Amino acid sequence: MRDLELEEYRLRVREGLETGVTAGVAPGRVQANLVILKGDLAFDFLRFCQRNPKPCPVLDVTDPGDPVPRLVAPEADLRTDLPRYRIYERGELVDEVTDVRHLWTKDMVAFLLGCSFTFERALLEAGIPVRHQECGCNVPMYRSNIQCVPAGAFRGPMVVSMRPIPASQVARAVQVTSRFPAAHGAPVHVGDPVAIGIEDLARPEYGDAVEVREGEVPVFWACGVTPQAVAASARPPLMITHSPGHMFITDLRDSDLALF
Amino acid sequence: MRDLELEEYRLRVREGLETGVTAGVAPGRVQANLVILKGDLAFDFLRFCQRNPKPCPVLDVTDPGDPVPRLVAPEADLRTDLPRYRIYERGELVDEVTDVRHLWTKDMVAFLLGCSFTFERALLEAGIPVRHQECGCNVPMYRSNIQCVPAGAFRGPMVVSMRPIPASQVARAVQVTSRFPAAHGAPVHVGDPVAIGIEDLARPEYGDAVEVREGEVPVFWACGVTPQAVAASARPPLMITHSPGHMFITDLRDSDLALF
Repeated sequence: MRDLELEEYRLRVREGLETGVTAGVAPGRVQANLVILKGDLAFDFLRFCQRNPKPCPVLDVTDPGDPVPRLVAPEADLRTDLPRYRIYERGELVDEVTDVRHLWTKDMVAFLLGCSFTFERALLEAGIPVRHQECGCNVPMYRSNIQCVPAGAFRGPMVVSMRPIPASQVARAVQVTSRFPAAHGAPVHVGDPVAIGIEDLARPEYGDAVEVREGEVPVFWACGVTPQAVAASARPPLMITHSPGHMFITDLRDSDLALF
Repeated sequence: MRDLELEEYRLRVREGLETGVTAGVAPGRVQANLVILKGDLAFDFLRFCQRNPKPCPVLDVTDPGDPVPRLVAPEADLRTDLPRYRIYERGELVDEVTDVRHLWTKDMVAFLLGCSFTFERALLEAGIPVRHQECGCNVPMYRSNIQCVPAGAFRGPMVVSMRPIPASQVARAVQVTSRFPAAHGAPVHVGDPVAIGIEDLARPEYGDAVEVREGEVPVFWACGVTPQAVAASARPPLMITHSPGHMFITDLRDSDLALF
């Protein structure tokens, strides 16, 4: 996708003409999770992200009241430029909308967090299979027994995603994803699901189960569902997020996030 | 230095028995810059650091009122465990003390930022010379024309440090320091001082000039003086920092900061 095409796509989203999932849109551009909080909770949440960079890699955080992500998409408006949003009150989902201008207040802070699309593309380019993509389903995600470092009201377990990797390619998968700390980075755990509190790989808490074949190792990465789950469990008066799969598309290219 | 020796050293600092510079103390342990701010300024400064990770790599940021750096030294107290502090009022240096308990309030937030000692050790271990250490002087530092991304009242140019590196070892110096993004990471500029607004290498704004010899390239890294300079120029009612060279010694080892 050329810059102009991205600009046109974003305008169509802004006008409410594009409301679908963003998988496959603007290949090579970094997509991001969105969390909007207000007041003191925003500072608490930024400290939470700083303490838990693997599940919560911050790509951009706006100034209070500023809906423009000046680091990663200075022409965009986070109140209108995602195809679909979720509204939470005290941790309960109360609405799903395509525009949040009517809810925006001058103490709101928007967080854009890296997402796994970036490192999955890197895995595929390195010739490493991504099972759930082969199956056309969602990645399996599990609540682990790894506790995040708390900050203010924000605390809880790390949610991890699992990809079965052939034993001969595990080391390469670690190398490839290590280049992208802003997209969850290296795995948090390799093999032995029970050691991180996952009793049954066939029963993920989120997403879909996938087969782990003979000669494959289950490899676990920190997952972007963590910040949403943690933020919701803090039961803030109001929280806005993207709807699952309906991400914000930044101006950044995957290569901009690569360490080297 | 064994854990016990570090503990004893920290207790001696706490009791006011050690008030000297920390260069050479606890080799292999990560040393950190300290900035203490209060109220809304703390959130502004954390956003500034997030936007400028090369000059401002955050190792730890405490909860408001909590003087314990729980991520990097959970037994320490930042009000007493640095050998020497500087007190700034509205950006002006007003005092230098060895204990700041009398100034501590419940809305104070402490930031610990990575420092260049870590990557200089990595350069030396890789057989790359570090000229200012050979000369027994301070690293030369310059105000560049690279502007930091602002946040709230915090804005200003990036201060860079310069090390002359033999041309054949520049690539290796980039690789070695890239492993330590939490200690300023890879250089921000290689060669051509004028391109970043440095007219005369012989006249650094901070530290001491060093010779750049035939066949050497001046290599520039983001410098930890940046956050202090930026924070002071925002003229906060009260700011506390370490005194130059009198760093906080964390429990972390240099290897804990290495990417891989």
